[in-house]
Formats: sequence, structure tokens, C-alpha cells
Amino acid sequence: MRNFKLTIEYDGTDFHGWQVQPDVRTVQGEIIRALGELGRRVSVTGAGRTDAGVHAAGQVASARLETRLDAPTLARALDAKLPPDVRVRRAEEAPLAFNARFDARSRTYRYILTRRPSALWRRYFHYHGGELDLRAMRRAALELHGEHDFSSFSSSADTSKAKACRVMTTALAETPPLLSFEITADHFLHTMVRAIVGTLIEIGSGKPLNMKEILEQRDRRAAGPTLPPNGLYLVEVGYERQAGKIG
Amino acid sequence: MRNFKLTIEYDGTDFHGWQVQPDVRTVQGEIIRALGELGRRVSVTGAGRTDAGVHAAGQVASARLETRLDAPTLARALDAKLPPDVRVRRAEEAPLAFNARFDARSRTYRYILTRRPSALWRRYFHYHGGELDLRAMRRAALELHGEHDFSSFSSSADTSKAKACRVMTTALAETPPLLSFEITADHFLHTMVRAIVGTLIEIGSGKPLNMKEILEQRDRRAAGPTLPPNGLYLVEVGYERQAGKIG
Repeated sequence: MRNFKLTIEYDGTDFHGWQVQPDVRTVQGEIIRALGELGRRVSVTGAGRTDAGVHAAGQVASARLETRLDAPTLARALDAKLPPDVRVRRAEEAPLAFNARFDARSRTYRYILTRRPSALWRRYFHYHGGELDLRAMRRAALELHGEHDFSSFSSSADTSKAKACRVMTTALAETPPLLSFEITADHFLHTMVRAIVGTLIEIGSGKPLNMKEILEQRDRRAAGPTLPPNGLYLVEVGYERQAGKIG
Repeated sequence: MRNFKLTIEYDGTDFHGWQVQPDVRTVQGEIIRALGELGRRVSVTGAGRTDAGVHAAGQVASARLETRLDAPTLARALDAKLPPDVRVRRAEEAPLAFNARFDARSRTYRYILTRRPSALWRRYFHYHGGELDLRAMRRAALELHGEHDFSSFSSSADTSKAKACRVMTTALAETPPLLSFEITADHFLHTMVRAIVGTLIEIGSGKPLNMKEILEQRDRRAAGPTLPPNGLYLVEVGYERQAGKIG
């Protein structure tokens, strides 16, 4: 049995999310299927269970299987067996104990808005046309930093008991016509990033919302709407320096 | 009866090209259908009859119809009735005689290659991984400038008799991981841009091809392969200064 750390890019549009489910197309399902053609006793764990329609530039998965292939060969062979909307950007051999989900120390997500409606790019950016006060949005985003209970940004579908997340960084960057919001935290609740960006847009549009008060209310109704998944990307997963290395 | 100059953006991936055909989804077909809900006696002419899978950032169409809407209202109403992969970027009232196809003086196409395989963006850029000699490609592209018989770059499906095109400008620009080739000519033959870029890639890869000789042979077999449509965009259509203005 060997273990590999895979860094994976995918276009989420035509997937029912990361996690394998019966009878629907999922990214994890495609990777398990492809690995099954390259080895035996396959199991795959992803760092982030992205929702239907959410993209990834740097999802990380640990993949255990019996195979004789080395990591670069495995990456090439996987790409040949995967559909074009999933690509393996990198494969590295990892210690057998490495678990992409439980060993992850941080996840970074990016939400990209386009300020101009576009026929091209509509799969990749969410359109928002109105005026936005970026300074107010940045000020509100700073209130998210640190450890908070994020119940106000968690969908009722999230049954995890640990509602506390530690936000390390946020950044709002404008490169017209795009506006992107990046956030790094130790972990995220279900639909949390999309609800945060939905709230930031309401604040940027002049609604009298206070991010600190929203957090304190621990009530989903206190925050803004959950934006659609097409603008959301899992861009990076962080590990301790040793993780993903053998030895 | 009134006439409008429409500037249109579309994602060609899910269309059988621009031109209306029975039983398949085409951009012209969608526009005719949408205009039919906004006025009577509709006819639509496009400047470039893009192939299946080819995108447009700046296709121009002349649209004649009986309506009371002014141009900005027509643009908004059209967008509301069009599917999300077609957007009207601008509508201007035009003289009744204006014909987007016959009055066009130039068309500009861009072909975008990505040098890194990508799961995201695969609908919009064509992947080419090998080393490329950009200087050799630029030198070869210069041979295209001026008026030439482009039979060597014309598919057998092109039944037009006028094989002479006048190329005004070409530009090859690299912004890693993307490489884009832009070409402006008075008009283009069927699959001409894709065959030109296919030939430039062979030249950039070190194949002993001479662009001038290829043109002189007037034989499709002399040139390189026709690249897939996903990397191709109709970006701009040029008119005489007066065109598209009332007066």
C-alpha cells in the first residue's frame, strides 16, 4: 500500500461537487474510478468537500492504493484516464499516515465577481452590477479575522458541531471588470464563503449591516444571501511543512 | 421598419455556430427568436459566420425589425430574453441600408493557446505544451501581411470563389501560461485562422515549413492542421467611420 498527495484542478460546473455519491458525477468519484484502473484497494480523501458547481485550482487529496507507478507517472496516467474537466497538477508520494483532510492546517478560497455581464466566463465568475463601497467591504472583512462562531454563515445542511473557525487572512482585490475576495481559515462551514461574500456585497451596497453583530447573533438570518457556486474556487490547502513528504 | 447594429458576445461551446440551421442551437437562431418577442418582421445578418465552438467577444449583427423600442431598451430587453451564453454588449440605431456583413471592412480574430493543461479554461483556450520558437512564428506571420490567395488555409467546405484576402495586421503575444495570436483581415475563408495558427505552431516547433511557399502552393495539404475551435474568438468587426450611425 502506498499513499500519494494529489493536487487537483477542476471545473465544478458539471459535477455534483467533490464527494462521491451514487448515480451522480462527482470529482472524487472520477478520481476513484481512474485510480482503480491504475492500482488496487483505492481510497481517496479530499481536503475540501466542495459543493456542486464550485471549482478548484488547488484541491488536495490523499490517495492510497497498491501500485508500482512512481508519483510523476501516476499523475500522467491519471490525467490520461480523467475527463478534461479534472486535471492532476501534481502528485507526490506521502507517508502512509498522511490524510489530506485531517492534516490540513488551512484552506484558501477565492470568490470572483465580474462587474460586467459576460457570455464568455459566466461559468467562472458571478455577475454583480451595482456600485460597491470596497472600503466598507474591507473594513467588514477585517471583523472576520480571528476565531469566531460562524453559525450565521452556515447552512442548515451543515451538521458539524464545531461552528468555530479561525480566519487567518482576507483580501479583496479589484482588477476590472473582476473583483475577487480571498479568505484563508483553518476550516470552513458549509456554504460559509458564499454567505460571507453575499454579506459583504450587501455591506458594499450600503445596507446597514454590522459584521461583528452578525457573527454574535449566530443566526443564519442575520447575514446576507448565499451566492451561487460558479464564482467560488478552492485555491490552496496548507499543511505543516513536513506533510506530504516521505520520512 | 428600423435597423440596429448589435455588438454581441457569446460562448460558442454549446452552439452549432452562428448561422441559423434547422433543429440545432445557433447564435443567430437565438437572436432571431428573442427579437421576434420584441418586434415584427425580424431579419438578422452577422458580420462573421463563426463555426461551431468558436466564441465572439465582438460579433456585429444588423437587425431589422418593426419595434417602438429605442436602442438601449432593445439591448436590455434582448439580454433578458437571450440565454446566458449570448449577451448584447451594445445596440445602436443604424441607417436602414446598414448591413453588418457587406459593410464590414475588417474582421479581427484571436486564437488563444494555453501552455499548461487546465481543467478550468479548457472551453476557452487550446492546450499546446511543446516548446515554441516565437521569433520564427512572428517572422512567418509577417509573410501573411498584404493580399494573398489563401486557398492553402481554406477548408474544402469553403465554396466561395474569392480566395484572396488582405491581411492588415498580425500579433503574437505571450502572457504565460497563455499565448495569443491576433489577426485582422478584410475577410477570412472557412477555418482560415485555425489553419494559420496550426501552421504557425508547426513552424514554431521547428518543422521546415515556409509560409510564403505554402501560400504560393494554393493547396490545403501544404499547410498545417486546423486547430480546434475552443481557442478562437471573433473580437472585433471594423466599419467605415459613418457605418452604424444614423445620418
